[in-house]
Amino acid sequence: MTMSSDDRETGATFMPKYDANGLLAAIAIDAASRDVLMLAYMDAEAVTATLDTGFAHFHSRSRGRLWKKGESSGHVLRVIEVRVDCDQDALVLICERAGPACHTGATSCFYRRIEGGGLVPAG
Amino acid sequence: MTMSSDDRETGATFMPKYDANGLLAAIAIDAASRDVLMLAYMDAEAVTATLDTGFAHFHSRSRGRLWKKGESSGHVLRVIEVRVDCDQDALVLICERAGPACHTGATSCFYRRIEGGGLVPAG
Repeated sequence: MTMSSDDRETGATFMPKYDANGLLAAIAIDAASRDVLMLAYMDAEAVTATLDTGFAHFHSRSRGRLWKKGESSGHVLRVIEVRVDCDQDALVLICERAGPACHTGATSCFYRRIEGGGLVPAG
Repeated sequence: MTMSSDDRETGATFMPKYDANGLLAAIAIDAASRDVLMLAYMDAEAVTATLDTGFAHFHSRSRGRLWKKGESSGHVLRVIEVRVDCDQDALVLICERAGPACHTGATSCFYRRIEGGGLVPAG
């Protein structure tokens, strides 16, 4: 069966579109605050693991393997809902946090904002 | 001057990290609802155009050129604040919308959620 662009954009079938590296972007947001927590990438294995377990999994590009967010820190992300965009090459994960999302200890990886050409705390 | 990973992660200098294609990911969110509106990619030209004009610009991968969001539809995104993540390879744009963000007419590109293996309206 051939799926057209229209099927992908308006249909009811989940058909994720991976890039040349087999990845799509996944944006984790906090279910409570609605803040964007982090952006990471998923391959098909990570999408399946996330949907099957209810915990966010990504593909580590540096380590070249499946990575469960929080596997070493314990700061897992429990996924309440997954949204997909029009062309199905990006996901939004609505999550409950078990701790800070960022490895620096910040709640969100987006803890700085641009001001006057430099960076200042976003808070 | 050499910038270390620590400088990039905790410093006050904006030094965006582009991928092999010269791009970074930019997540546009709605300043009022906090909803994620869209994900697109920026090259250095698009970052500069966005910061200089206060309107979201991206790099169109399909057309290979700078693209001002809403340039044909009028549905521009006025950028109130730009946040950067820990490793500076992703941005969050906090925006005021002039119309729907999605070319399908939906307010957000993320208008469907996964349920039971298929897609249903996210609403």
